[in-house]
Amino acid sequence: MDFSESGDLLENIFNGDVRSLARAITRVENRSADGTELLQRIYPHTGKSQIIGITGSPGSGKSSLVDRLATLYRRKNKTLAIVAIDPSSPFSGGAVLGDRIRMNALATDPGVFIRSMATRGHLGGLANATADVVSVLDAASRDPILVETVGVGQDEIDIVKLADVSVVVLVPGMGDDIQALKAGIMEIGDVFVINKCDRPGVENMERAVQSLLSLAHRPDGWIPPIIKTIATEDRGIEELAESIHQSYEHSQTTSLRMEKRRDAARQRLTNLLREQLVHKAVETVFPGDGLEKLIDRIARRETDPYTIVDLIVRGARFDT
Amino acid sequence: MDFSESGDLLENIFNGDVRSLARAITRVENRSADGTELLQRIYPHTGKSQIIGITGSPGSGKSSLVDRLATLYRRKNKTLAIVAIDPSSPFSGGAVLGDRIRMNALATDPGVFIRSMATRGHLGGLANATADVVSVLDAASRDPILVETVGVGQDEIDIVKLADVSVVVLVPGMGDDIQALKAGIMEIGDVFVINKCDRPGVENMERAVQSLLSLAHRPDGWIPPIIKTIATEDRGIEELAESIHQSYEHSQTTSLRMEKRRDAARQRLTNLLREQLVHKAVETVFPGDGLEKLIDRIARRETDPYTIVDLIVRGARFDT
Repeated sequence: MDFSESGDLLENIFNGDVRSLARAITRVENRSADGTELLQRIYPHTGKSQIIGITGSPGSGKSSLVDRLATLYRRKNKTLAIVAIDPSSPFSGGAVLGDRIRMNALATDPGVFIRSMATRGHLGGLANATADVVSVLDAASRDPILVETVGVGQDEIDIVKLADVSVVVLVPGMGDDIQALKAGIMEIGDVFVINKCDRPGVENMERAVQSLLSLAHRPDGWIPPIIKTIATEDRGIEELAESIHQSYEHSQTTSLRMEKRRDAARQRLTNLLREQLVHKAVETVFPGDGLEKLIDRIARRETDPYTIVDLIVRGARFDT
Repeated sequence: MDFSESGDLLENIFNGDVRSLARAITRVENRSADGTELLQRIYPHTGKSQIIGITGSPGSGKSSLVDRLATLYRRKNKTLAIVAIDPSSPFSGGAVLGDRIRMNALATDPGVFIRSMATRGHLGGLANATADVVSVLDAASRDPILVETVGVGQDEIDIVKLADVSVVVLVPGMGDDIQALKAGIMEIGDVFVINKCDRPGVENMERAVQSLLSLAHRPDGWIPPIIKTIATEDRGIEELAESIHQSYEHSQTTSLRMEKRRDAARQRLTNLLREQLVHKAVETVFPGDGLEKLIDRIARRETDPYTIVDLIVRGARFDT
């Protein structure tokens, strides 16, 4: 990519051009050299949009909830984005059973930019890739940016940390309540939703969440509300949006805002460094098929990875 | 730790001493210098035990299933180990609602070594820490080693890759069946279990799994069986153990066995390198509070992480 093209793309993104936005995201996702250049240029223009993380187990109805929230924000004339992290196959690299079904109204509305990301095949990890995509959307003044994830892994928690407000979606009677609440994502929720609250078991779930919240100590003094919704009937969505708004406002007034931004910066720096340093080390220390031969020897127990890593790290020099 | 103490500890582990085993695992988990030395010495003695990964959502009853399997293996006079990965709080660093309740018979039996690991706070990531702990158990001739995990994150998938046989535990009627099946862990299952199969919805779940399996192409030619169990009533456990055994035998006869070991070696090497190189780079390039000052500047958008990382990586030299 020559410089002027990059400049044009950037300008088109700032002007709200949807196709340029899609193209920029693809570049960034592919982690090509011009993708990195783009990110360098975009970075100063980020940090303005509200990032809302929405997490829930498969079957919790969080996709419907996200769709309803998006519709609500559209009614308020916001131009927003949805980033949906799709659990996908480690074999095929793609989503197993095709993409989620989005409401038609959203899919054709240029005011809602929707991007699905597979959980697999991201060089440098999903959290890095998501952070990069969110940066582009942020620079394009998409606000809010809804990031939708499944599960409780470290990757998920890293993604949730990007968000200004984290919404955890639960359903009544999901497994043994207590077991479900053990999941790591629970304590990072700023707003809790009990969706499908026309089902039995709402009171039990609410009690369980409340007793968990009473155990947790939040350094920012925010008390996470528990909102009851039926996404498919559009019930409780206004209240949810209001709670998200309040949580966001709270996060912006406390001294924790800068701390959160510093955490995000630290994570971004460390993750990028990790990925690129290892790449260079391997290329330098094991040219050609040197790495594969070494891996053979480790697999056959002729040497061990600890000794090898120790040797490489001892020999590393950093000139700046 | 002086050398002779390390030698004694190693000998005690090989002799089956349970307290030495527990001590060694703690050292390895703490990633101290002597923990690494221990791992270097242990590594040549690993690769013999059968590693069985057992994955299922919260509430799928996989802990009961693991307990029943362990009881069965004990009846066959095996000395085994259970490594339970507990989803835990990112704030407190420990499990939110205390440890699972293990059957008393197992907890007091030295033939079953049980270790819980929190999902948080592992320098270098959970997958690294689990691989290290499994190595120690392997060297101590614990066989099989049952590794129990929750969820569908990248960490979980990395852990499952350690296993010789991966068991995926489902329950009838968990969420919308199709959504549940999208989860990334599905395609790496060697054996599927429908637990709590006295509940309604067994046939639907079985059909959904079967149709998913018919889509997947397994390069090793193994056809994953679907086993129905009621763990709490000890039903289907014998059949499950037999399927695990067959899957293991199959994996050992195919040419994929060496490939799997090479994958594990590659992952171990890369993860260790990642962790230790970044540590050294940060210490060298940003002595004192240099890193914190830089992170402040990134958070304030005065510079960007891409440029910084590029500078560090350009300046890196690897002398070997």
